[in-house]
Amino acid sequence: MCPAKTTDGQQRGFVIPIGGAEERVNDPIILKRFVELCGGENAYIVIIPTASQLDDTGSNYETVFHELGVKKAVSLPINDREQANSDDYLAELKNATGIFITGGNQLRLSTILGGTPVAQSIRKLNAAGVHVAGTSAGAAIMPGHMIAGGRTGALPNEEGVTFAPGMGLINKVIIDQHFSQRNRLGRLLSAISYNPFASGLGICENTAAFIDPSGTLEVVGHGSITVVDPSDLTHSSMADANRGEAITLIGLKLHVLSPGATYCINERIAKPAR
Amino acid sequence: MCPAKTTDGQQRGFVIPIGGAEERVNDPIILKRFVELCGGENAYIVIIPTASQLDDTGSNYETVFHELGVKKAVSLPINDREQANSDDYLAELKNATGIFITGGNQLRLSTILGGTPVAQSIRKLNAAGVHVAGTSAGAAIMPGHMIAGGRTGALPNEEGVTFAPGMGLINKVIIDQHFSQRNRLGRLLSAISYNPFASGLGICENTAAFIDPSGTLEVVGHGSITVVDPSDLTHSSMADANRGEAITLIGLKLHVLSPGATYCINERIAKPAR
Repeated sequence: MCPAKTTDGQQRGFVIPIGGAEERVNDPIILKRFVELCGGENAYIVIIPTASQLDDTGSNYETVFHELGVKKAVSLPINDREQANSDDYLAELKNATGIFITGGNQLRLSTILGGTPVAQSIRKLNAAGVHVAGTSAGAAIMPGHMIAGGRTGALPNEEGVTFAPGMGLINKVIIDQHFSQRNRLGRLLSAISYNPFASGLGICENTAAFIDPSGTLEVVGHGSITVVDPSDLTHSSMADANRGEAITLIGLKLHVLSPGATYCINERIAKPAR
Repeated sequence: MCPAKTTDGQQRGFVIPIGGAEERVNDPIILKRFVELCGGENAYIVIIPTASQLDDTGSNYETVFHELGVKKAVSLPINDREQANSDDYLAELKNATGIFITGGNQLRLSTILGGTPVAQSIRKLNAAGVHVAGTSAGAAIMPGHMIAGGRTGALPNEEGVTFAPGMGLINKVIIDQHFSQRNRLGRLLSAISYNPFASGLGICENTAAFIDPSGTLEVVGHGSITVVDPSDLTHSSMADANRGEAITLIGLKLHVLSPGATYCINERIAKPAR
């Protein structure tokens, strides 16, 4: 799925995948920056806690955003597909200057929201300028192609990753999260090599990619983002590999980006912090 | 330390770092190929078990090589620097068509052998055509700069690696072993970024790099070798990073090579298996 079209004169909102476990109380640098982007105290944040199976995930984030000075932070407790059709929730979404998708299980997000009016609304609102942040599962769901699961480890594997269609807020990237903490380079390399059209972003915990409307991301937070760019890939044995067999991938580009560094997704150019 | 000079008309021996845990009984593909290279049943293998603190490491490898049909396989039980001066051992080394350095602790290899006649002899013999294989610690010691220790994980770190001078059998590479099994990409990236003159080789267990006299390696075994080539590195924040801070590295090249694939260390060109 590709990002929804903008209409004349409109600028897209930011898309902000967060690697999970973002700091919420002491120096919550990522959430603070998201709030500022959405209007500071006048921000209207709508929270989508659908990935989580805990009852208080939505209300906890309401509290976090209120403590950051936001007057309006409202969680929509969408737990099944019927609720993802609710007119009340769609009306609430129309108020949003920012949408925040919590962590949990990304397959809950895709199975419950996929194809519903709520998902369509989030896509259209983002195209119309509303910023969308998502942490952990909420980050995984953002691209057109979502990493649903896979294997731990440093090496690509013929069965290293499982995909599902994502929400399509952002194109030309595959996103993985809890990246170094859960040792996920192998599944990101697997994902990229299945079809090397996209850059892979491996986002650490407490780290975010603030992707602006032009498609340039800036690293924000305390960790790093590993970018794998397959645009010069000259050989891949992925299609020929048997189960468990070692894979050959020749010609990947690798960037490790710390806070302040940027990566232009369209031009595939990485730059250090200024 | 650079490789010892060859004299006119001589061809260097192979240098064969193995990622540890090579198969020794069922389908011992790496050791078999090493034996063939060294002359098959007429090979004369001298084993250096110094890295190991187990008494039977040397004799176990004697048995392994005998079972592979080698008539002469002799272990030199060098456990201190005085023994690394032994005329008997130096005489034994002169018989060798192949030298095998076992695993254990690479700092035992460097502290016990460094600067001794045995180390000088191994260097000169390799320059004169004798093949040298080493597994795990025995692989780590081979380059001019040896990874002595470091941190586990996927990301580079200002304190991510500790170096010690190695034996200098091979130049322009840094070698890490047990690579995916022990999650060592971060320490290889740290090592490469300390001084990006060398390619990094991350060698999996039961996998070897057969490096021929021209400096081209072939992957042999059951796993893969991850090559990190920093020759296009445009930015590194390693020198400016504070303790624990995320690092930026822009412009690394990454190849994942499975058995049969090759990498030319001098030209820095990777090729798939033919």
